[in-house]
Amino acid sequence: MNRKFEFNDIDGILIYNEGEPIVDLNFFYFTRLLDSGLYEGSYYILTKDREIIITSELEELSAKKSGIETLIFKNQNEKEEILKNVLRDKKNIGISFSNISLKAFNYLKSKFPNIEFLDVTDRLNEMRMVKDDYEIDLIKEAAKIASDVAEDIVDYIKEGIKEKELAAELTYLLMKNGAQENAFTPIIAFGENSAEPHYFSGDRRLKKGDFVLIDFGARYRKYNSDITRTYIFGKANEKQRLMYEIVYNAQKIGIENIKEGISGKDVDLEVRKYIDSTEFKGRFIHSLGHGLGLAVHDHAALSPSSNLILKKNMVVTVEPGLYVKDFGGVRIEDDVVVKQDGCEILSYANKELTEI
Amino acid sequence: MNRKFEFNDIDGILIYNEGEPIVDLNFFYFTRLLDSGLYEGSYYILTKDREIIITSELEELSAKKSGIETLIFKNQNEKEEILKNVLRDKKNIGISFSNISLKAFNYLKSKFPNIEFLDVTDRLNEMRMVKDDYEIDLIKEAAKIASDVAEDIVDYIKEGIKEKELAAELTYLLMKNGAQENAFTPIIAFGENSAEPHYFSGDRRLKKGDFVLIDFGARYRKYNSDITRTYIFGKANEKQRLMYEIVYNAQKIGIENIKEGISGKDVDLEVRKYIDSTEFKGRFIHSLGHGLGLAVHDHAALSPSSNLILKKNMVVTVEPGLYVKDFGGVRIEDDVVVKQDGCEILSYANKELTEI
Repeated sequence: MNRKFEFNDIDGILIYNEGEPIVDLNFFYFTRLLDSGLYEGSYYILTKDREIIITSELEELSAKKSGIETLIFKNQNEKEEILKNVLRDKKNIGISFSNISLKAFNYLKSKFPNIEFLDVTDRLNEMRMVKDDYEIDLIKEAAKIASDVAEDIVDYIKEGIKEKELAAELTYLLMKNGAQENAFTPIIAFGENSAEPHYFSGDRRLKKGDFVLIDFGARYRKYNSDITRTYIFGKANEKQRLMYEIVYNAQKIGIENIKEGISGKDVDLEVRKYIDSTEFKGRFIHSLGHGLGLAVHDHAALSPSSNLILKKNMVVTVEPGLYVKDFGGVRIEDDVVVKQDGCEILSYANKELTEI
Repeated sequence: MNRKFEFNDIDGILIYNEGEPIVDLNFFYFTRLLDSGLYEGSYYILTKDREIIITSELEELSAKKSGIETLIFKNQNEKEEILKNVLRDKKNIGISFSNISLKAFNYLKSKFPNIEFLDVTDRLNEMRMVKDDYEIDLIKEAAKIASDVAEDIVDYIKEGIKEKELAAELTYLLMKNGAQENAFTPIIAFGENSAEPHYFSGDRRLKKGDFVLIDFGARYRKYNSDITRTYIFGKANEKQRLMYEIVYNAQKIGIENIKEGISGKDVDLEVRKYIDSTEFKGRFIHSLGHGLGLAVHDHAALSPSSNLILKKNMVVTVEPGLYVKDFGGVRIEDDVVVKQDGCEILSYANKELTEI
């Protein structure tokens, strides 16, 4: 078994992965099936003495690589029979209520009226928030790939290139460097488009004086990195330079405050206080950072409403930004591992003001 | 409003998009916000006389492009207040139970004890299965991009290239041709790896005599295509040639059987009967095809357990395959629009046996 779970009051846990667009990443966390397979409509069940994957014939070859006992169904009836057999005699089963659809849950309740299903979301989240060495190595590799690409992409930033074209070059570099794919749709925003934090990329062509905001990540064996750099194409004007300086300082404050024991809220607050002391008060319109792992937004972390106390080996992003409508935005984002007395930055790409 | 909805017995519908990895694509279906924005933790509410997006400041600029009334929250409390205000006086609200997590649903139930929430999964699915012209045009464009790439990629298939490297070239071509990103992690499988239907791509290098199975799609403005071609690197041996011929014929049978009014089960059965009459009986280990749209696996369609009756303007894949462990697999997949008397093939890439 890859994971230890304290059962206490329950007989086991059940994870149901419906498949895109409703994915339960706990399935991959427990099975460590990181290299292939979609596992749509598949179950993972862990009890005190047994660990089982229930999946279709389609995933048989992939699933067996896990070394976990794998039961194969050919159709819905067989799937139900296998599940009934495995859950026979069980009284209490833990499920992550955050990761199962209401419909899938109602199905289980109707088929197993004698089982009590308990919510183990918090317990699973707590496990997943603190990364083990195996996971940190994967995120490190993902961050290394993204860091190298964040620097290499500068050579492709030329007058007249479209955002979409730069996104293609970026993705190519990521995959050539070993990423399985983009961690998420890359955000390549030129000029005024950079004021939209979740902009994707379009047909806007690069011109002198534009911000070039690049927010992307590498997915490496299902683990993700997430990095943002903002460059200036040409010579920065005064406002651009000032915005950059403030975001740069803000990120430094964020990183300096991170260590085991501090609350996510306090780290966010320190940064927000600084930004709100400048003329860009109120223009930092999102959280300072989120947990990173099998999901890009793995868990809430550094935000005004976060009650999270940082623990050693959590991995979080630190990404202050400033957004001015019709002008543009600056964001600088790094991935860090929380340590006892500070943090280790995994994404080492240059972040000094760069005029291309 | 982009969509008409027959309310009958309910006051409105509510869609909650939690965000990766629990995405409700209905949010994008109704809002047509196809070009940017993640809309994590965002609501879409449609009532007889009002259409509203409730989202965070982070998505404000993106959301307003929809032309739909947009209410912005800065934090959880504001979000709750807005929601309470919008749902005031409502008695019955439809929700897709398949697209909301149990936790998000329990939250709504606790905050709105006087509202009855009814499952509208089937009604929404029925709407979404039949594509309108706007959607068909987007899928057509996605299929065009993928078809061109399926042919262009042949030039990159060289002795010694790794599966991963070919995946990088493929993704680059897709994005250069206008795709926003891969529709899904591309499956590039050489030789024996092609026996695993949901294989991703690894470090296996191409050698003479290998199958080259390429299963990928383009995502274009959030709509997807999904195409598979299997090439032979070098001269096909007898078994490879036979497998290819059977899959080729099987796909032809599938396509010829598709038309409005036929059941998905019957189309699958015709193909399966043919395959099971050959020496590869039982080696077609998945469904013949699935619906295609905002999700790659948009809905069940052509399978032994499907009760779906095909309707005009549904878009489905037709993808028979044969898989022989330790030897390899062949799959040929196209995307088609159901018509009154047949179907239109959207993915036109060459599928005659190709020895590279």
